[in-house]
Amino acid sequence: MRNLLFTIQYQGSRYHGFQVQNNAVTVAQIFQDALEQVTGQRSDIKGCSRTDSGVHANMFCVSVKTESKIPCQNLVRAFNVKLPPDISVLGCREVPLEFHARYSCQGKRYIYKIHNSPVRDAFSHQLVYEYPYPLDAELLNCQAQDFVGTYDFSSFCAAKTSVKDTVRTITACGVERQGDSVTFFVEGDGFLYNMVRIMVGTLLQIGAGGLPQGSIPKIIGAKSRSAAGPTAPPWGLYLDKVFYPQNQLGLPGEEQANG
Amino acid sequence: MRNLLFTIQYQGSRYHGFQVQNNAVTVAQIFQDALEQVTGQRSDIKGCSRTDSGVHANMFCVSVKTESKIPCQNLVRAFNVKLPPDISVLGCREVPLEFHARYSCQGKRYIYKIHNSPVRDAFSHQLVYEYPYPLDAELLNCQAQDFVGTYDFSSFCAAKTSVKDTVRTITACGVERQGDSVTFFVEGDGFLYNMVRIMVGTLLQIGAGGLPQGSIPKIIGAKSRSAAGPTAPPWGLYLDKVFYPQNQLGLPGEEQANG
Repeated sequence: MRNLLFTIQYQGSRYHGFQVQNNAVTVAQIFQDALEQVTGQRSDIKGCSRTDSGVHANMFCVSVKTESKIPCQNLVRAFNVKLPPDISVLGCREVPLEFHARYSCQGKRYIYKIHNSPVRDAFSHQLVYEYPYPLDAELLNCQAQDFVGTYDFSSFCAAKTSVKDTVRTITACGVERQGDSVTFFVEGDGFLYNMVRIMVGTLLQIGAGGLPQGSIPKIIGAKSRSAAGPTAPPWGLYLDKVFYPQNQLGLPGEEQANG
Repeated sequence: MRNLLFTIQYQGSRYHGFQVQNNAVTVAQIFQDALEQVTGQRSDIKGCSRTDSGVHANMFCVSVKTESKIPCQNLVRAFNVKLPPDISVLGCREVPLEFHARYSCQGKRYIYKIHNSPVRDAFSHQLVYEYPYPLDAELLNCQAQDFVGTYDFSSFCAAKTSVKDTVRTITACGVERQGDSVTFFVEGDGFLYNMVRIMVGTLLQIGAGGLPQGSIPKIIGAKSRSAAGPTAPPWGLYLDKVFYPQNQLGLPGEEQANG
C-alpha cells in the first residue's frame, strides 16, 4: 500500500466544487474516474478542502491510498491524458501512510481576482469577478490588515454551517492592484464556510462607502453574519496554496508549500 | 450619417473567425445583431482583418456607417449588455466618413502564446498552444530577427490563397519567455493568409532541430510554402494591435495604435 499526494489545478466553472455529490459533476468524481482508468482500481481519495461550485484552484492537494505500483512520474503523465482540459495534475509524490490531505493541512492561501474596469475582459468569463465601479485598492489593503490575527470569525461564516469552533488565525492578508486587476489574498490556518468570499464582499462594501472605514474589528466582534457585507461570487475565488508540515510529507525541516 | 470606429476584444474559441459566413457563427454576425438591437438599424460593418476560426483578438477594429445619433459612450455600454461574455467593446469614436477599418489600416501587431510546460495549464484551454517539449526562447528570438525586413513572404502563405502581391514589410519580431509562458510577437504593414502561424510553426521546428538554425533567409528565398515549417494551431494566435494614421482617424499627427 502506498499513500500518494497529488497536486492538481482546476478551473471550477463546470464543476459543483471538489467533493463528490449525488447528481452533480464534481472535480473529485472526475479525478476518481481517471484514477480508476489509470490504476485499474477504485480508490478512496481525500481532498485538502471542499470548494464551492464555480471556485477554482491554482493548487489543490489530494491524497490517495493505492496498491498501484506505477511510478509517480508516469501517473502524472497518464492522468493528464485522461483528465479534461480544465483539470491538470501538476505533481505526485509518495508520502507517509498517516498523511491525510485534509487533516495534515497546516494552512492555506486563497486569492480572489477582481477585474476592475467599466468594460469586461473577454478572456476572463467565470475566472474573475467583474467590478466596474471605482475601487481604491490601497484603501482596501489598509482595511484588510484588520483581518490579521486570531479571532472568532463567526461574522464571516455562512449561516448554514454546523462548525462549532469558529476561531481561526489569519497570518497575512492584503489587496494589490496591477492595472485593471485587483487581487485580494489571505493566508491562515483554516477558513470557515464562505469566509473568504464574505471577507471580500465586506471589503468591497467598505470601498463603496456602504460600511464605514475601520469597521472590520467591530464586525468581527459582533459574531453575527448579518454584521458583515455580502458574499462575493464564487468565480473570483482561487485556492492558491496548501501548506503541510515537512515531517507530515516525510521530509526533514519546517512547514512548506507543496507545489 | 456618422462613421464610427469600434475597438473590440474577443475570445475566438466559439467563432468561425470574424468575417460573416453562411452556416457558421462569426464575430461579425454577433456584432451586427447587437448593433441592430442597439440602434434599431441594420448597418454594414467593416472589420480590420479576417481572422481564422479560433483566433483571438486583444484589439480588433470595426467601422460602421450609421444614421444613429446615440453618443459613443452610451453605445459602448449598450453593446456590452447585448454582447456575449467572450466579446467586449472597449471603445467607440467618430471618425471621418472616408475611414475604413481595413483599407485605412497601416499596420498590425500579432502575438502567439505558447504554454511551455510538460503539464498543461487548466486555465488556458484554447487560449494558448500547449508545447510540452524544451524550448530555447533566446534562440528563437535570435532566429526571428531574420523575419524583419521587406520580403516576398510567399513561403509563409497558405497555398490556397489568391493574393497576388506577396511582399510584406515586417518591422519588429521576437520571442520572449516569462516562466512557462513563451510569447512570439510580430509587427508589420500586412500579413498573408496564415503567415503568423507559419512563422511560429517554422520557428518551433528550428527550435526542435527539424530545420537548421539560420534557415529563415533561405526559406524566404525559396518562395514556396513547402520550404517552411508547419502551420501552428489557431488557438495561440491573437491580433494584438491595429495601427491607423492619425489623419485617417481625423486627428492631427502621426500613426498611432487606436487603443
